Amino acid sequence: MKQKGLIIVLSGFSGAGKGTIMKHLLQSHPGEFNLSISATTRQKRQGEEDGRDYFFKTREEFDAMIENGELLEYATFNNNSYGTPKSYVEQLVNEGKDVLLEIEIQGALQVKKIFPEAVLLFVMPPSADALKERLLGRGTETEEVVAQRLAISTKESQYMSQYDYLVVNDELENAVENVYSIISSEHLRTARNVENINIIKEDLKKFERS
Amino acid sequence: MKQKGLIIVLSGFSGAGKGTIMKHLLQSHPGEFNLSISATTRQKRQGEEDGRDYFFKTREEFDAMIENGELLEYATFNNNSYGTPKSYVEQLVNEGKDVLLEIEIQGALQVKKIFPEAVLLFVMPPSADALKERLLGRGTETEEVVAQRLAISTKESQYMSQYDYLVVNDELENAVENVYSIISSEHLRTARNVENINIIKEDLKKFERS
Repeated sequence: MKQKGLIIVLSGFSGAGKGTIMKHLLQSHPGEFNLSISATTRQKRQGEEDGRDYFFKTREEFDAMIENGELLEYATFNNNSYGTPKSYVEQLVNEGKDVLLEIEIQGALQVKKIFPEAVLLFVMPPSADALKERLLGRGTETEEVVAQRLAISTKESQYMSQYDYLVVNDELENAVENVYSIISSEHLRTARNVENINIIKEDLKKFERS
Repeated sequence: MKQKGLIIVLSGFSGAGKGTIMKHLLQSHPGEFNLSISATTRQKRQGEEDGRDYFFKTREEFDAMIENGELLEYATFNNNSYGTPKSYVEQLVNEGKDVLLEIEIQGALQVKKIFPEAVLLFVMPPSADALKERLLGRGTETEEVVAQRLAISTKESQYMSQYDYLVVNDELENAVENVYSIISSEHLRTARNVENINIIKEDLKKFERS
């Protein structure tokens, strides 16, 4: 059945394992999903390619994209800006391709405002303590930074119910399977199959009796 | 995570393969689902047990159940009435058990009215011609009966968009897998996890900073 692609947004607390789930999903289902490519003002690094790794933009170009509403969402870290180009996502879904976005919570809610049909997945650890352990376990952050991130999670948790689905990242394999199930079944929603329903309705008319 | 069970309703055109999908789903996931047990006025047959195969009722008892709003839906065939007892379904979902119901279209919509949280699946063949072939292929129906059923399908198709999901029964194994995906991912909807969200929100408060 023909259908538009889905916009699938993965977000959740820092340390919940979004990136790992995403990576394993892409690996276990090669060719099935497309990653959104971000626009960025940061310098191109060796081996990176424009239009494959990022859309590299000057500050002026990036600001113009914001101005013209060409970004679904954007954020700035260390003076470099990163954003999701709306047109690229639209192009993919119109070609019937599913697009995966990994973005933070404010950005995710922004995407849902622009594309209400987007599917928002909130990835969370099995408990608050598990979240703390994971952040500490990385060993890359000071205790102070971990405490800051946990405090941010407390604030962010108020947005959880604005998401469509909750994915508890307890067993990684299980979480990846759950994300895949959500995507598969979202394709089967009647609201996403209006055209297919009309085709079968038309087709059945030949059996009508007066 | 703790949660109420789901009410999963399978319906669709006569000949679409609902019964076969249901049977295979139960076989491939033993113990995971419960079938709703119907109340009926028909005579108990040898080997049947009250409360396992059916809830056997006298005509008076059955009519009283209708009168008291104790049936989710009911229908009469060959002077025997069959209905779905509301209390039995409620008991199962309150115990956290998923309940499968296979009912015709009017009954399914009636269930959705009483339980808006029920998940309605519309099982359909890949095309109108495939539906006709299946009905003829059974070899149990006269051409006239098949023509009548097809005409009914034409009428019933107007209700398709009131369902939550469409399941195309092309490859049986694929259809069974899709039904299973739908059920799994419905459990992950934030709307069904309000209590679990509140638990994690409370739990995260210990990381709050002033």
